[in-house]
Amino acid sequence: MSSIVDTPKPPYYAVIFTSQKIDEDKGYNEMSDKMVELVSQQDGFLGFESAREELGITVSYWKDEKSIINWKANLEHQEAQKLGKELWYKQYKIRIAKVERDYEL
Amino acid sequence: MSSIVDTPKPPYYAVIFTSQKIDEDKGYNEMSDKMVELVSQQDGFLGFESAREELGITVSYWKDEKSIINWKANLEHQEAQKLGKELWYKQYKIRIAKVERDYEL
Repeated sequence: MSSIVDTPKPPYYAVIFTSQKIDEDKGYNEMSDKMVELVSQQDGFLGFESAREELGITVSYWKDEKSIINWKANLEHQEAQKLGKELWYKQYKIRIAKVERDYEL
Repeated sequence: MSSIVDTPKPPYYAVIFTSQKIDEDKGYNEMSDKMVELVSQQDGFLGFESAREELGITVSYWKDEKSIINWKANLEHQEAQKLGKELWYKQYKIRIAKVERDYEL
């Protein structure tokens, strides 16, 4: 379940993760649940928004770049990244971006 | 139809548009098709990625901030923005972010 994240006043960081998954599960859903739990405990993590049709888009929000680098280096997360490359994704692109301004309805 | 955009080397800009739509169409799909056609003609537009489940996420990519400001001010787009507020969206958030680095599989 994903809803619009109540992020703080900019600047903060966004990691835009866009992917094309294989059709089979191959352990993906279990690992995905585990990563959601793990990422929620990370310093500087502000929340994430996610949707998937042909394309999967997950945008996670972070206090600063250091928090993003720490999360990428997390050992359990590294194992998930390795399996992602080997098993689950046909293609993905990750973009690290600094949110400069935002507005809402 | 949405696929991973072949964006240029950073820096460039991303507009992250996250929304919760009403269930009824009320002219949304027609306007959405029209806006896809229109945005593709804008100077500095690099492409977009989109997916919707409970949450809709559309990330559009732009050469620079000026291109984003011009698109927001486009008259036909302004009419769509107005209808979005009045008719189609329960809630949305728009974040303008500078992509600093990216990598891919």
